[in-house]
Amino acid sequence: MKNIIVGQSGGPTAVINSSIAGVYKKAKELGYEHVYGMVHGIEGFLNEDIIDLDDYLNDDNNYELLKRTPSAFLGSCRYKLPKIEGNEETYEKIFNILEKWEIDCLLYTGGNDSMDTIKMLSDYAASHNKPQKFMGVPKTIDNDLPITDHCPGYGSAAKYIATSLKEIIRDNASFGKSRLTVCIVEIMGRHAGWLTAAASLAKDETCEGVDAIYLPETTFDLNKFLDNIKEMAKTKSSIVIAVSEGIQTSDGKFVCELGSDDRAVDAFGHKQLSGCAATLANIVQKETGLKTRAIEFSTLQRAATHLASLTDINEAEAVGMKAVEAATNGQTGMMITLERTNNNPYECTTNIYDIHNIANVEKKVPIEWINLETNQMTDEFLKYARPLIQGELTPIFKDGVPVHLIRK
Amino acid sequence: MKNIIVGQSGGPTAVINSSIAGVYKKAKELGYEHVYGMVHGIEGFLNEDIIDLDDYLNDDNNYELLKRTPSAFLGSCRYKLPKIEGNEETYEKIFNILEKWEIDCLLYTGGNDSMDTIKMLSDYAASHNKPQKFMGVPKTIDNDLPITDHCPGYGSAAKYIATSLKEIIRDNASFGKSRLTVCIVEIMGRHAGWLTAAASLAKDETCEGVDAIYLPETTFDLNKFLDNIKEMAKTKSSIVIAVSEGIQTSDGKFVCELGSDDRAVDAFGHKQLSGCAATLANIVQKETGLKTRAIEFSTLQRAATHLASLTDINEAEAVGMKAVEAATNGQTGMMITLERTNNNPYECTTNIYDIHNIANVEKKVPIEWINLETNQMTDEFLKYARPLIQGELTPIFKDGVPVHLIRK
Repeated sequence: MKNIIVGQSGGPTAVINSSIAGVYKKAKELGYEHVYGMVHGIEGFLNEDIIDLDDYLNDDNNYELLKRTPSAFLGSCRYKLPKIEGNEETYEKIFNILEKWEIDCLLYTGGNDSMDTIKMLSDYAASHNKPQKFMGVPKTIDNDLPITDHCPGYGSAAKYIATSLKEIIRDNASFGKSRLTVCIVEIMGRHAGWLTAAASLAKDETCEGVDAIYLPETTFDLNKFLDNIKEMAKTKSSIVIAVSEGIQTSDGKFVCELGSDDRAVDAFGHKQLSGCAATLANIVQKETGLKTRAIEFSTLQRAATHLASLTDINEAEAVGMKAVEAATNGQTGMMITLERTNNNPYECTTNIYDIHNIANVEKKVPIEWINLETNQMTDEFLKYARPLIQGELTPIFKDGVPVHLIRK
Repeated sequence: MKNIIVGQSGGPTAVINSSIAGVYKKAKELGYEHVYGMVHGIEGFLNEDIIDLDDYLNDDNNYELLKRTPSAFLGSCRYKLPKIEGNEETYEKIFNILEKWEIDCLLYTGGNDSMDTIKMLSDYAASHNKPQKFMGVPKTIDNDLPITDHCPGYGSAAKYIATSLKEIIRDNASFGKSRLTVCIVEIMGRHAGWLTAAASLAKDETCEGVDAIYLPETTFDLNKFLDNIKEMAKTKSSIVIAVSEGIQTSDGKFVCELGSDDRAVDAFGHKQLSGCAATLANIVQKETGLKTRAIEFSTLQRAATHLASLTDINEAEAVGMKAVEAATNGQTGMMITLERTNNNPYECTTNIYDIHNIANVEKKVPIEWINLETNQMTDEFLKYARPLIQGELTPIFKDGVPVHLIRK
């Protein structure tokens, strides 16, 4: 037991760095000599772009700052490992680097695509009799990893979405019935509507909530959507609607494509979506004559660490710590999961699960958590999601803005 | 001296309600019997849609909540009073309502267009020998009112912009040079670039800052803009650019119109602008082949009370208090101004100024505060703006989201 390395992969979250903090803390506690970080994930690792976390975190102030730093402190990547067969040289290179740096365990924070990396590396180790351990640390605002109750990163994005929507709803209501505006807010989530569903958390005693929510789990019916708006416009002085970027009509067309078909595709073959809210705002304006506004939370929903959920930060730290512990105990090819042991009061613990049953599987919002009209969430969803956005970790402000920790 | 009334007009800000709080506090202190609020400004007042603020603010908790509530608590309007000549019946109606409700002073928070309302009412009072006093309370995220050093509302919007840009910059840098993304962020401000200039506040020891800033005060040169990006793309691993919604090319075309000309016009004849960042992101992608992303802060920049500047909140409260004091002392047809008496340490006091020299005049960013390349702010701007974003007023969270005060 000598050294350990951790990397970050995929789209960042507001709390991905808290998992790095947890890894560092537990690894030091367990006596690892060096806790290394890959710069830009496995892609950087292949170029031996590696830093020693002691250079940053051997200081309590920096440790606290790291937990308040958005995006991937180590740098992320979207590098997909090739399949083992026919690409053995890539894997040999990785294991050579591991041996050269005397690294016993490799931990990787990420979502679906990143868990695939851990699966491949642990498969290669098993078939080539390599001693190194590989462990996945869940991270995704999308909340679409299976088995785990929820994913670190989701709670903070949900808190940002709920808070911002409360503010947008107040703003949109400011002019009253005489200047009714239909505000359509676009939220991330290609196939799973967890983030968009979090819009329902805006509703409370001091907020009427969003007027409709459309998830990719159900078919989007443009006519029903327009009829609903026309009906609401008769009495309401503000209409705010949350839509997932991935909603599709019954013919399988993305709503954002109703306006244009010129879309790029990312490294994993996902269609690059955007402009769903803008497309709908245009249609509503033309079909109803009402004033409309389109808002996209864009990367803010994953980067707004200043509004992170303390529950989420603590859990992100805990899964990092658990990954070190499990790998040190000889576990490999596993992902850390969160298990909710009680909901009221909320209690959650960490566990481990075979990564072969996790990688490349997407967990969607259960259809029974969506109402029959397919435009609001049920109480079951609220009971599930509300505990995840509890608590705050106040940013450390300097000169009026939050301070972050950055690589030199 | 019996009753006083306050109304809110124009686009809301994160701290417009702190001015209402200040009005209430000072009016009660000075012994006014009723402190009334117009629901939806002068438009609601004409329908006698009036509430008694005692019903809400006679409770310290609610007073604190009001200061943490975004948008216009009383409801806003965009109602322009007609010119006096030929429209005397409108003015007679207003003064009849004032007499009926025994209102001695009318205070109005707003920007340029709203100050015009105070001017008209005080002119009518002067020419018709009416005793009521009229006072303007400055409020605008745009910071474009003359005479006053700055406007309440600006500091909080600037703090939101600087903080969000720091988070966006970190996010945009997460994938490194191999996946360089040009992120173009659109910020409000039709003719005055104060808000966009606030993007420069993102730069500090832990943030490299935005790579370019384009204000409406200078002509936007598309070719220079593209050349600058191509040059930066050779070395940088992230490019983030802030643009004002109102930037125009040398032929006087709004950049957002380079994509389309189908634009609506608001009640004051302003062109409705949007999509400048999206237009530029498309052009950059086509001309350079680089991956691009467009982000619009939209109404979040004026509604994000959870990130308000404490300096701004205190000053918004102070101008409300000063307005009551001045009107009670017999002043009328004036606007409260903020006077910076010292910059280091920052000290600011309130004053009053003849509204005839304020209404309908727009204050722009001094051209000498923009660098010669017209794509960054100088230190002079930073010295001006940095004090305005200092301090925080932590939101009161309940169930994971900030609580607001709303009208029943």
